[in-house]
Amino acid sequence: MNPLILALDFGGTKLTAGVTSPGNHNWYAHKRTFSPPHADASTDIKIMISLAQELLAEDKPTAIGVSFGGPVDFTTGIVRLSHHVPGWENMPLQKLLEEKFNVPVTVDNDANVAALGEHFLGAGQGYNSLMYITVSTGIGGGWILNGKPWRGANGMAGEIGHTVIDPNGPLWFGKHGCVERFASGPFIAQRAREWLQTKPNQGQILRNLVGDDLEQITAQLVSQAAEKGDELAIQALEKAGWALGVGISNTANLVNPELFILGGGVTKSGEAFWQTLCQAARETAMPEVEFEIIPAALGDDAPLWGAVALAENLVEKSL
Amino acid sequence: MNPLILALDFGGTKLTAGVTSPGNHNWYAHKRTFSPPHADASTDIKIMISLAQELLAEDKPTAIGVSFGGPVDFTTGIVRLSHHVPGWENMPLQKLLEEKFNVPVTVDNDANVAALGEHFLGAGQGYNSLMYITVSTGIGGGWILNGKPWRGANGMAGEIGHTVIDPNGPLWFGKHGCVERFASGPFIAQRAREWLQTKPNQGQILRNLVGDDLEQITAQLVSQAAEKGDELAIQALEKAGWALGVGISNTANLVNPELFILGGGVTKSGEAFWQTLCQAARETAMPEVEFEIIPAALGDDAPLWGAVALAENLVEKSL
Repeated sequence: MNPLILALDFGGTKLTAGVTSPGNHNWYAHKRTFSPPHADASTDIKIMISLAQELLAEDKPTAIGVSFGGPVDFTTGIVRLSHHVPGWENMPLQKLLEEKFNVPVTVDNDANVAALGEHFLGAGQGYNSLMYITVSTGIGGGWILNGKPWRGANGMAGEIGHTVIDPNGPLWFGKHGCVERFASGPFIAQRAREWLQTKPNQGQILRNLVGDDLEQITAQLVSQAAEKGDELAIQALEKAGWALGVGISNTANLVNPELFILGGGVTKSGEAFWQTLCQAARETAMPEVEFEIIPAALGDDAPLWGAVALAENLVEKSL
Repeated sequence: MNPLILALDFGGTKLTAGVTSPGNHNWYAHKRTFSPPHADASTDIKIMISLAQELLAEDKPTAIGVSFGGPVDFTTGIVRLSHHVPGWENMPLQKLLEEKFNVPVTVDNDANVAALGEHFLGAGQGYNSLMYITVSTGIGGGWILNGKPWRGANGMAGEIGHTVIDPNGPLWFGKHGCVERFASGPFIAQRAREWLQTKPNQGQILRNLVGDDLEQITAQLVSQAAEKGDELAIQALEKAGWALGVGISNTANLVNPELFILGGGVTKSGEAFWQTLCQAARETAMPEVEFEIIPAALGDDAPLWGAVALAENLVEKSL
């Protein structure tokens, strides 16, 4: 019988499960649901297990791969915490699923798993080295080096959002001027809001989008206004693109990967963001350091396909 | 017969050769000489070959490892250039030595080879991941990841000196505020000199060391003055330590190696430099990211022992 793979993605607000088999790049079954408001870890786990059981019907998986939206101790499969959902502190997610399904399970954080997914089936196929960067509410990243995940000595590699690029920049998590403080979605929105407050004659298109209720401004609306030619919105995105570009250039100088793959909502912000980003990265990196920067190909499915890759590794080990 | 290893270090101003055998951690023979003033690539190569022949006497090496003080294409063993000695542009050093000695040769740049040397026999023995950083006239680095050298997609990994930590900082190589511009020896000396010019009542100890001839100031003299309590000298070193510390924290967040090993003249600058450096690195890195920072153990011999490790790899392959 063909071995079955179960892939799970605990995404903070969304829970997704998929079933496939090794070497098969389509889902036999796939389902996504929202985590209920005020959910905690045990609710999310129950929902995910019933989702999985529904997809599997009478079948039994051979291995399970799991992407978790928060820091995970990869070696033990224990979740450290979730920044979105309470109750995840020190949750032994791997053990719990192993006992439930009686099969081997691997758990890793979403940035690492998304990097693996893009390398396995997305924009990074065939590359020997790449960094996947997700730019959304936060900014995180995952590595493929020598064709394999690089997680760092204690599983913390890839934290480009917390690298400092301006010691005189604004404060965030106790540090001045980290990339996340400049380039994540909430801070793009905050910057636009602050500029609208201090520059009453600018940003008319963006103002109109929110009926002058500045509290409604999101990074997505800033992008929409920028697409329509709003100069203030364009500049707010350019500042974000510049910061991420400098962060990427530093990473390129330090690690010299072939490729940077960018995913997450903010990377759909259009030309002003992308052009500034690529230019800042190229101009700030050493001329001899070669790299490409491209958008992610798998979108929201990157972690789930990465989870399939994790499970395929377990199947290979068991053969 | 025991296979012999020849290790060569083209160090810019110094040329060093050593002979040993695999598994032997002492030199059978070892000799260092200065590159003559106005030397070019071909003079240095001739001197090095005669040095090697003198050490080998009638014996023939089984493999040769070479450290070169400048960018090298590791896959072909072609030197890109030297920043110190003219005539090295596109020099096929590996091929040249292979033809001369009729044995396999590996050539790599000094930062990579020193990282390998410290991992092989120095401060990094037994570690799975480390970055070696040399802080001297320039600032460069080399990686060990998963117990092996990581050179980057086009051999440029490790360039921590060129990472930007302050976009409003002073200009260097077309960029503002890179680590090298703050923390390398010549810029420590320049900073102290500038401060002495604008602060006539400060830095008396440092002034005395150069008989008020500010052009004589070097980073080494700044360190001496700092050791004697000169406040201006201490602050000049602290600025350097801070910059390198921020560069290290960014690297720790991005790659999360177990260890940073610091070598090169500037790292002998004493307490003011080291304490600021370690504090800035620890405070700027994410609290969850663990790492140690320690001084190099092999000093000037790190590249030569790394060259031995390169040659041992060649011997293993040939068995």
